[in-house]
Amino acid sequence: MVLDLRIDKNKEEPAYFQIYEQIRNLITSGALKGESKLPSIRSLSSALGVNTITVVTAYNMLEKDRFVYKRQGSGTFVISRGEDLLLNSEQPMYFEPGELDMENEYDDDYIDFSISAPDPKLFSVKDFRQVMNEVLEEDGARAFMYQRSVGYTPLRNALVDYAREYGINCCAEDIYVVSGAQQGIDIIAKALVKSGDCVFVELPTYSGALAAFKSRGAKLVEVPLNDDGPGIKELERLVRLFKPVLFYAMPNFHNPTGSIYSVRKKKYMLLLAKKYDFRILEDDYSGDLNYTDSKLLPIKAYDNNDRVIYLKSFSKIFMPGFRLAYMAIPEDIRRKAADAKIASDISTSGLMQRILCKYIEKGILEKHVTYLRKEFSVRYLEMVRAIKKTIRGAKFFEPKGGLNLWINLPDEVNSQELYENCREKKVIFSPGTFYFNDEKGQGYMRMSFAATNIDEIWEGLSIIGNEAEKLKHKY
Amino acid sequence: MVLDLRIDKNKEEPAYFQIYEQIRNLITSGALKGESKLPSIRSLSSALGVNTITVVTAYNMLEKDRFVYKRQGSGTFVISRGEDLLLNSEQPMYFEPGELDMENEYDDDYIDFSISAPDPKLFSVKDFRQVMNEVLEEDGARAFMYQRSVGYTPLRNALVDYAREYGINCCAEDIYVVSGAQQGIDIIAKALVKSGDCVFVELPTYSGALAAFKSRGAKLVEVPLNDDGPGIKELERLVRLFKPVLFYAMPNFHNPTGSIYSVRKKKYMLLLAKKYDFRILEDDYSGDLNYTDSKLLPIKAYDNNDRVIYLKSFSKIFMPGFRLAYMAIPEDIRRKAADAKIASDISTSGLMQRILCKYIEKGILEKHVTYLRKEFSVRYLEMVRAIKKTIRGAKFFEPKGGLNLWINLPDEVNSQELYENCREKKVIFSPGTFYFNDEKGQGYMRMSFAATNIDEIWEGLSIIGNEAEKLKHKY
Repeated sequence: MVLDLRIDKNKEEPAYFQIYEQIRNLITSGALKGESKLPSIRSLSSALGVNTITVVTAYNMLEKDRFVYKRQGSGTFVISRGEDLLLNSEQPMYFEPGELDMENEYDDDYIDFSISAPDPKLFSVKDFRQVMNEVLEEDGARAFMYQRSVGYTPLRNALVDYAREYGINCCAEDIYVVSGAQQGIDIIAKALVKSGDCVFVELPTYSGALAAFKSRGAKLVEVPLNDDGPGIKELERLVRLFKPVLFYAMPNFHNPTGSIYSVRKKKYMLLLAKKYDFRILEDDYSGDLNYTDSKLLPIKAYDNNDRVIYLKSFSKIFMPGFRLAYMAIPEDIRRKAADAKIASDISTSGLMQRILCKYIEKGILEKHVTYLRKEFSVRYLEMVRAIKKTIRGAKFFEPKGGLNLWINLPDEVNSQELYENCREKKVIFSPGTFYFNDEKGQGYMRMSFAATNIDEIWEGLSIIGNEAEKLKHKY
Repeated sequence: MVLDLRIDKNKEEPAYFQIYEQIRNLITSGALKGESKLPSIRSLSSALGVNTITVVTAYNMLEKDRFVYKRQGSGTFVISRGEDLLLNSEQPMYFEPGELDMENEYDDDYIDFSISAPDPKLFSVKDFRQVMNEVLEEDGARAFMYQRSVGYTPLRNALVDYAREYGINCCAEDIYVVSGAQQGIDIIAKALVKSGDCVFVELPTYSGALAAFKSRGAKLVEVPLNDDGPGIKELERLVRLFKPVLFYAMPNFHNPTGSIYSVRKKKYMLLLAKKYDFRILEDDYSGDLNYTDSKLLPIKAYDNNDRVIYLKSFSKIFMPGFRLAYMAIPEDIRRKAADAKIASDISTSGLMQRILCKYIEKGILEKHVTYLRKEFSVRYLEMVRAIKKTIRGAKFFEPKGGLNLWINLPDEVNSQELYENCREKKVIFSPGTFYFNDEKGQGYMRMSFAATNIDEIWEGLSIIGNEAEKLKHKY
């Protein structure tokens, strides 16, 4: 093939950079399609009247930046779908309005389907007060001192047993306590991701994770999800092309889609991670909120090769205000993760860690999770019924667990517009545009039932249903 | 001058890279001294038989990596002292043993001069319990929900008045609440420092800050400190050479040296920051622990050009277990800092923020700080007396504030050796080796009196004094 490239000798940039830049622009503008073959080094250098080394340098830069790849013996090719998959790191971030920028004060007026943290009414302040008093009686002001950065030892011990309940076998040294799951993601990004490294994320995914990886200068590749996880063939192709260092995944009750990786895909992920030498950061934010009798294990439970960093938030089953999560970390990256934790905030509140420890040791947490599971399962069923009844034409996967439903809206209804109209009526949810970087998000909404009771579910959804109907007839 | 460089055409690396690498090696090995002039582009390209653009590219890379600088009209020069000042980012980090990796459980046996957080005995659990109960009565479980990432609004309002007491005029929108000062440093590093950017730090300095900047891939330049701040001429020279984006400083009761920037130097820092367009991250970890009657203002109080990000920890005057600090942030970087906070941990515990808010509003914090100041000033004086009496030949600056003394040990006493011998006798402190990357640290120790009472000060120091004498007579 012939490319229309020019070298301008009056320009300050060296020739190799001019070549790199022009080819890159052809790729990003779409003029050069995926899998097209670039001219051979010899032919391009003679066409441009430059040294072959100049062209080699330009091609190497393109390869390093993952615009092209080399096929042994057959030349250099444009990476296909690179335009769709590589997230632009300059793009502004969108955060879920409910979780990330909410002040409780003005909250009560709204029916809020955006926040996926438990209804405060489900949390017993009495239990908390009692546990807190016990901690203060035992440890006094010592509870307010600095802690070991990896966590309060008795809590780490308690978490070993806790993790075993979910199929995870580890020792206390594997367990790190962190100040919430977002910090866990940030710490792993610091420990494993250097500028220019490639990180795989699910499409769509949790925007807070994207923020942490982008902040490290990572290149993000989005992996489309089916109801049972990513397509296997496509995933392996992408892994081969992009050589990720990390795959950030929510295999059980994925946020926002609710999808659940099949056991086969969970095991396949582990195989790939071993074969292509990357890690999986498994964000198990709500795998314990399973409303069926069938067992659902995290990928970590199948991991025999230290591929998985397991991350478990307590924000969904305890309360987010504690800012507590834990990680089970493979031995060879413990040191790096510990350094990253120290650089992040030295240590997590010793008081909060002591409180969680007592909740676990006394069995209060287990009872609380059982209570939440029952309460949420009722809300889940009611939510499914209410959506079917009120939003005509909506399609959605029924995960039978977690805290969200991911609604594919009827074609005529734009989720951003629906969001704005409903907000005026004091009903809010998360429009799909918070999860996609392009117009795909306009067809989706995430509905959480964590902070809404049954009356609110029906009241809120009848308003949403009405507004959706109005939009259908607007045009 | 003539350089003995060679281009090997059989090598895979392009010529410009070979030139870059060889000159870099000459500089780092010391063969090319600071301020030596590199050959002109024309002469080097003809000597090597390469295009001038090749040499230009190599020189540009050297400049970008801060090995050389260009002087308008006179050529390219090696940056002097680069070898001494640029910290090697591969170097392992050293953390203060007391603060960063301590478990309270085994703490009581030791007399601990390493920890610079207040003695838990000085903290009233009764006050805390009362404030906590008031918060729970007013807000119930709502106190455990997510917060706005920039902070709990009533606390931000209270902090505006609080900051004014220390000469800082700002509005609530300038105030961000963070989970401890370490997180504040990490957030500013995320917001302002890209890989390869240059950050100035004091020599010696707080190792947690180095960890945060290194994690961003920053190039660190160490600025030597006198008792009244950095040398002005030397500082401007370094600023011109390295073009920092940020200067991390502790101008009042510096950690570990206790030095205090003079007002003249505080103002000069602001002038430089304006002239050369960098920011100052002012870590005011203990400026409020001033044991004299003379007023001591932070740099921020003199800042009329939005140069200073002010960071105030509550770990030294409240308790570290709360994990609370606040920042006063110039308007133009608020957005970046807010994004970095979200990516770090979404928000700081709403419960802890409410508690601090009540402590401030009810005047309990002010009373507590007054009490601590009195208590610490007694310990300070006792510590000064005890050191003079027990460690013969020790020299130290008397800051009349803060929580530490920085002791220059007699020549025959190696601080690392002293540390190990004292540790066996259950007395610990921070050897100077935690603050320097080279042997300089062996002559110093940091002695904190925050967590030791008067009896412990005398008992601990008599042990340290004895061990120091033994070391003097060992050789």
